[in-house]
Amino acid sequence: MDNFVFQNPTKLIFGKGMISSLSKEIPLDKKIMVTFGGGSVKRNGVYDAVKSALANHDYIEFWGIEPNPSIETLRKAIALGKENKVDFLLAVGGGSVIDGTKLISAGLCYDGDAWELVKKGRYMKTVPLATVLTLPATGSEMNSGAVISRSETKEKYAFYSNFPVFSILDPTVTFTLSKRQVACGIADTFVHVMEQYMTTPGQSRVMDRWSEGILKTVVEIAPAIRNGSNDYDLMSDFMLSATMGLNGFLALGVTQDWCTHMIGHELTALHGLTHGATLAIVFPGTLKVLREQKKGKILQYGERIWNIVEGSVQERIDRTIEKTEEFFASLGLSTRLHQEGIGEETIAEIERRFNERGVAFGEAANVTGSVARKILESVI
Amino acid sequence: MDNFVFQNPTKLIFGKGMISSLSKEIPLDKKIMVTFGGGSVKRNGVYDAVKSALANHDYIEFWGIEPNPSIETLRKAIALGKENKVDFLLAVGGGSVIDGTKLISAGLCYDGDAWELVKKGRYMKTVPLATVLTLPATGSEMNSGAVISRSETKEKYAFYSNFPVFSILDPTVTFTLSKRQVACGIADTFVHVMEQYMTTPGQSRVMDRWSEGILKTVVEIAPAIRNGSNDYDLMSDFMLSATMGLNGFLALGVTQDWCTHMIGHELTALHGLTHGATLAIVFPGTLKVLREQKKGKILQYGERIWNIVEGSVQERIDRTIEKTEEFFASLGLSTRLHQEGIGEETIAEIERRFNERGVAFGEAANVTGSVARKILESVI
Repeated sequence: MDNFVFQNPTKLIFGKGMISSLSKEIPLDKKIMVTFGGGSVKRNGVYDAVKSALANHDYIEFWGIEPNPSIETLRKAIALGKENKVDFLLAVGGGSVIDGTKLISAGLCYDGDAWELVKKGRYMKTVPLATVLTLPATGSEMNSGAVISRSETKEKYAFYSNFPVFSILDPTVTFTLSKRQVACGIADTFVHVMEQYMTTPGQSRVMDRWSEGILKTVVEIAPAIRNGSNDYDLMSDFMLSATMGLNGFLALGVTQDWCTHMIGHELTALHGLTHGATLAIVFPGTLKVLREQKKGKILQYGERIWNIVEGSVQERIDRTIEKTEEFFASLGLSTRLHQEGIGEETIAEIERRFNERGVAFGEAANVTGSVARKILESVI
Repeated sequence: MDNFVFQNPTKLIFGKGMISSLSKEIPLDKKIMVTFGGGSVKRNGVYDAVKSALANHDYIEFWGIEPNPSIETLRKAIALGKENKVDFLLAVGGGSVIDGTKLISAGLCYDGDAWELVKKGRYMKTVPLATVLTLPATGSEMNSGAVISRSETKEKYAFYSNFPVFSILDPTVTFTLSKRQVACGIADTFVHVMEQYMTTPGQSRVMDRWSEGILKTVVEIAPAIRNGSNDYDLMSDFMLSATMGLNGFLALGVTQDWCTHMIGHELTALHGLTHGATLAIVFPGTLKVLREQKKGKILQYGERIWNIVEGSVQERIDRTIEKTEEFFASLGLSTRLHQEGIGEETIAEIERRFNERGVAFGEAANVTGSVARKILESVI
C-alpha cells in the first residue's frame, strides 16, 4: 500500500425532506448566491423547497449553468457575486452546477480572470460552498474537483479547490430524472470506481472490496432504476454509490488511472457528448488496449462482479470486456463512436491534443497520443 | 435507508515514516502535552520518532494511561495539563491512550470533575487532539468516541467528544505487537463491523458490501498476521480495516446494534478482561440468542463470508455461528466464559446492572438484563 494523506470534511446530509435543513446549516449573516442550471428544479419541487428553507436568509439567484459548465457563463456569475458581495454559495443541481460553482467560489476571491485559475489547476482561496444534489453521477458534492470547459476553444480541464461545506442528498429528487440522465449517472459512477480500481492488483484488499461493493451494487440495481424508478431504497443506494464512488474513500493507498476520463473529456469538449456517455464508449476500449497491463485486475473484476471463472485467461478477459460493454449497452448508451457520429477526424484531433500537452496519462503514464488513438480505434 | 448526517473531519496520515510529519502538522505556537501508555513505545522506536519530530515544539509528557483508561489516572493528566496551560494534545498509543486523551481534551475545558463529563456522555468543548496510533483495534483514531472506566466502582461508560484533528498510522509500528494484542485487535475490528452490519437485512447494498469487505479481509489476513507478521502490506490492510471499521463509513443510513459491546464492557469492568477478548466470547452468544431476529443477516453473512450455502436455514445458521466461534478460537482467544474463570456470579451482576440502568440495548432495544443473562449463559 502506498503512503497517503486523506481528509474529507464535507458534511453529508442524506434523506427525504432534508433540504429543509438548509435553514439552519447556513448562518443568517451570510450573503448567499444560489446557483442553478436550467429550469428542472422548478418542475420537481427542489426550487420551492430551497426557497422555503431560505425564507429568512439574504440571497440572490444565478441561473443558467449549463452541462459542462463554461468559463463564459461562470465569469458572469463571478461578476454578479462580486457586485453583491456574496460570501456563501449554494449550488442546486447536478455535477455541472456544482463544478461550475466551485470555480465561482474561487473566482470570487481572485482578482484576475477565472480561466487563469483553471489553467493553474488549483486555487484554495474560496468562499464557502454547499450543495443540494439533484443528479447522482459525478461525486462533485463530496470532493474538491471540478471540470470546466471553454466554449470558444473547445477545451475542458480539471480544476481543484475546496470541498463543499455540506451537501444535501434527498433521493426523492431523483424520481423525475430522465432515463438518459440515470443511464449516464450509472456509467459515470461505474467508471469513477474503475479509475481507482482497474489498476495493479494486490495493493489493498479493503479498497478492492469497497470498489467491488459499489460496482456490484450498481450492476444489481441498474435493471430496476434505468427505466425510471420511484423505489426510495434503490435510488438511495444509487445516490450513495455515486457519492462514495468519488469522495476519496476508494483511493486510500492505491494507484489510480483516469486515462478513460482524459479521453472522454476530449470527446465532450469536441462533440458536446454527455460525460457519462463518453465513458461508456471509451472504457471498454481502455480495457481492450491495456488488457495485458491490466490482466490481473480484469480477471479479478470478471470473477467478482460477473462471476466469470471458466475458460483460459484470454477467454476470461474477452468475456469480461464483453460483459462490460453489454452492461453499458443495457443502459441504452452507445458503446461505439460511430453511433455518435464520431470518426477519424476526432481521433486525429485527440491524438494531436495529447501530443501537444506532452503528458502521458493512466496508472503507468503510458497513454500517449498514439495509445489514445488505439483505444478510440478499438471502439470505432 | 434511514436519513442520516455524516461528517468525519479527521485527517488520516498513513504510511511508513509518516510520524515525521508531526513537525509540520502541529503549529509551533502550541503548548503540547504528549500522552502515553506504558513503555512499549520506548522499545519500538515510536517514542524516538515522536521526540525527533517535535524537536522544535514546546511539549510536556504524561505517562501511564492504562488499558481501559481510568478516571483516576486521567484526573492527574488534566491537572498537569491545566497547570501547564496545554492547548494541544498528542496521544501516542493504542485505543486506550487515545480514548483517555479524548477525556483529557474535554477535561481541560471544564471546571468540574471530569467524571461528570463521562456521566453526561458528551462534551464538545475541547482542546485539539491528534494521535499517533500504535495498535490497530478500536478505531478511536478516526472517531469521536471513547470508553472510560472508574476503578473504584468498576464502572465503564462511553463518552463522545470531538474527532482527532489528525491521526498518523504507520503500519511498521505494528511489527512489534504481541500475538495477543494482534488477536484482540482482529476480534475488536471484526465485532465493530458486526455491530453495524448484523442487523436488519436490505437496508443498503453498499453498506452491507463495505462491511463484508472488511470482514472478508480480516478473515483472509488473520492466519498470516495472528502469529506476528512483518509483511507491510498485510499489516497495512489490518490497520486500514481497524480504522475504517469504526469511523462512520459503514454506518451510513443503517441501523446499528452494539449490545455485544454493552455486555463486553461489563466483563472488562468486572474482570479486567481485554476488550477484544470479551467480544470474542459474547458475540457468538448474541448470535445464538438472537438467531431468529437476526436470521436474514446471519444467512447473508454465512454465505458471503464463509461460503455457507447448503443445508436448511437452521443448519446454515448453526454452521455460521460455529464458523464465527472457530474464527475467534483460531486467534488463540477464549470463546467461553469459564475459560476466563467467569461464572454465575458475574452473570448475575451484569443482569442486575442492566436492570438498574433501566435501558434495553441492541438494534431492537430488546436486550434487557434477562436477555443479557441468556447471551452469557449460552457461552458459559
